[in-house]
Amino acid sequence: MPNSRWEYSERAIAMKSNVIREILKITKKPGVISFAGGLPAPELFPSATIKEVTNKILTDSPGEALQYGRTEGYPPLREVVAERMNKLGVPCTAEEILITSGSQQGLDVVGRVFLDEGSLVVTSRPTYLGAIQAFDTYRPRYVTFDSDKDGMTVDGLEDTLLTGEVRVIYLVPTFQNPDGRTIPTDRRKLIIDLAEKYGIPVVEDDPYSELSFDGEVPEHMKSMSPEMVVYLGTFSKLLAPGFRIAWLIAPRGDCYDRCVRMKQGADLHTNTLGQHIIYEYLKTGDFDEHLEKIRKAYSKRRNVMVEMMHKYFPEGVSFTEPNGGLFLWVTLPESINTTELLPKAVEKQVAYIPGNAFYPAGGGYNTMRMNYSKPNEEEIEIGIKRLAELFDEALGK
Amino acid sequence: MPNSRWEYSERAIAMKSNVIREILKITKKPGVISFAGGLPAPELFPSATIKEVTNKILTDSPGEALQYGRTEGYPPLREVVAERMNKLGVPCTAEEILITSGSQQGLDVVGRVFLDEGSLVVTSRPTYLGAIQAFDTYRPRYVTFDSDKDGMTVDGLEDTLLTGEVRVIYLVPTFQNPDGRTIPTDRRKLIIDLAEKYGIPVVEDDPYSELSFDGEVPEHMKSMSPEMVVYLGTFSKLLAPGFRIAWLIAPRGDCYDRCVRMKQGADLHTNTLGQHIIYEYLKTGDFDEHLEKIRKAYSKRRNVMVEMMHKYFPEGVSFTEPNGGLFLWVTLPESINTTELLPKAVEKQVAYIPGNAFYPAGGGYNTMRMNYSKPNEEEIEIGIKRLAELFDEALGK
Repeated sequence: MPNSRWEYSERAIAMKSNVIREILKITKKPGVISFAGGLPAPELFPSATIKEVTNKILTDSPGEALQYGRTEGYPPLREVVAERMNKLGVPCTAEEILITSGSQQGLDVVGRVFLDEGSLVVTSRPTYLGAIQAFDTYRPRYVTFDSDKDGMTVDGLEDTLLTGEVRVIYLVPTFQNPDGRTIPTDRRKLIIDLAEKYGIPVVEDDPYSELSFDGEVPEHMKSMSPEMVVYLGTFSKLLAPGFRIAWLIAPRGDCYDRCVRMKQGADLHTNTLGQHIIYEYLKTGDFDEHLEKIRKAYSKRRNVMVEMMHKYFPEGVSFTEPNGGLFLWVTLPESINTTELLPKAVEKQVAYIPGNAFYPAGGGYNTMRMNYSKPNEEEIEIGIKRLAELFDEALGK
Repeated sequence: MPNSRWEYSERAIAMKSNVIREILKITKKPGVISFAGGLPAPELFPSATIKEVTNKILTDSPGEALQYGRTEGYPPLREVVAERMNKLGVPCTAEEILITSGSQQGLDVVGRVFLDEGSLVVTSRPTYLGAIQAFDTYRPRYVTFDSDKDGMTVDGLEDTLLTGEVRVIYLVPTFQNPDGRTIPTDRRKLIIDLAEKYGIPVVEDDPYSELSFDGEVPEHMKSMSPEMVVYLGTFSKLLAPGFRIAWLIAPRGDCYDRCVRMKQGADLHTNTLGQHIIYEYLKTGDFDEHLEKIRKAYSKRRNVMVEMMHKYFPEGVSFTEPNGGLFLWVTLPESINTTELLPKAVEKQVAYIPGNAFYPAGGGYNTMRMNYSKPNEEEIEIGIKRLAELFDEALGK
């Protein structure tokens, strides 16, 4: 009996293939300058120091670093993460930190703990696609709010919360993937006030706030209302994604305990070696300097991208100029469909992600996500020129 | 609003805390000889070679080993795993292998792909508790079949499959955790025949078959019917669990594709560094020799445990004598409840897991799981004497 005739779960049958994955496949051709990915620059990984501390760990305590570990995470790592979070203005203790296998697992844990079939999730449009993919396993419905220059708008939010069906408000409030937008303090306060009023937890997904180019970011939502926010942080963009080490901060009690149990069912615990390496790396004291280095590098790349866009993009094309993170967002005249345009872009040896991918309910057809952390400055300059040419042609200029 | 009043998912509310976790906490007292855990012996990890290959990786290709990777896994690792599986008589190609974050994630992926609320899972009693914990997220029901010396019995299995509600048959057919029992070839064939007849996939969870003390194991169920079996293998017991590197082999097509998508939503991909390390380790050619070493060590520990049990345990106490794996199973007279006995055992500085923990629907009150891979020979001897004393007292001898 072929497995195509087996009886699969409803969720497995409903799960679409990941659009971005499919897109990345067609953009991976030799010679193509790709702004489609979301990778940190590997040449900036602090590889020498990582090698040193790894060597130390495998000399001094291989038995511990290669053995099973606790579901909550390696206790010393939880301690230093809590210390760092406190320094960044987020009040928490090590007991509230759960080490996860990347922030993707943090999102999955949120889905497991909060979502039943048909539950409502409030989020922005566009929104982070990985979150949708994680949540979709639990088959919720989404209510999305449009974005302006300050991220998710809040008109009508209270009416939605009044329905009593919303389980979580999901946001990437700082330098959001895909659009680079940041929700300013006053709008954060508004959302938090409503969350408190209606007793709805806010999920603050925060991979990018430490990548602020001028060091400025609004107050974390977790700081505004520690008891109402589940916070997700990660080392993937700050250090290296291959470790799959991230953390979730949940209010102590039912919420934290349920997150731990759900993670335990999912993968028992996050890889021990990676946790030990990151802990030892943080102890060297090199982390802040490293962050400064990648902030500078990404800031320079972003500057080149924005400069080239101003110089070469035709009239009618606008874009965000984020002050941090890895992505910016391009909006074209409504006549252009960026999904249809992509094959022509690849022909011209340049690639992006069509913005529609970040609108779970459709929309955003004339938008695109651009990554500036992976390509170097020269590639950015050439790639933007190619895109500009493409836009000129598409607009009949 | 305290988080105890938040609205959680039905699955989160239903999820009990893990009994074994709670038990392990009370058994972790200084001086207690513990047969309760399930850890491989850390002194046997091939740490020196692992350090060497890790050093090489972080010198030669840190950019790749620390970067994001594919959901399916590191392609060269998938290749060598497929080669090994073929050598072990399991026909498969690299394209059918999905690297998972431990076998616990393999079980979670199975749950995601196959189980809806109320779906039936067929398994043995006792059964592996981690599987129940993984599946419970998806809220199935269980039909369990009693075990004899040859593992799960099959009387009534066909009637159950006839209901049309069974989604998977879950088995650890070789040196099962918790009871060390192995299903012999003819019974495997019977189960496979029924699975084929009714089109029900079999999940063959196989962490232990390479830990056979005399090298003999029955034919893998995956080998008997490659198209009907989803196979789970892991490096946790063979190399080291801290990497969290395991693999799932699914028939090509719908089944494999769905497994990949479900894993992608769960954690994007398994940690890259661990995959590179294991790949490079396997390339050294030391693996077979290492396996021989741990087989010998565990076999010796098992022999000591069995010998001591024969020597000291009172009449009326029986136990399995598995020819591989990490666990054996003790059955006491019905008058003894091993859960109630545990605090007295801990007082006597010895610990085990009450067998009831492995009966999701209750039962097994007079049984216990004993681990012989972690304690050394001296500890085993002392610990079994302590247990024997305890049994004597409990039986009024």
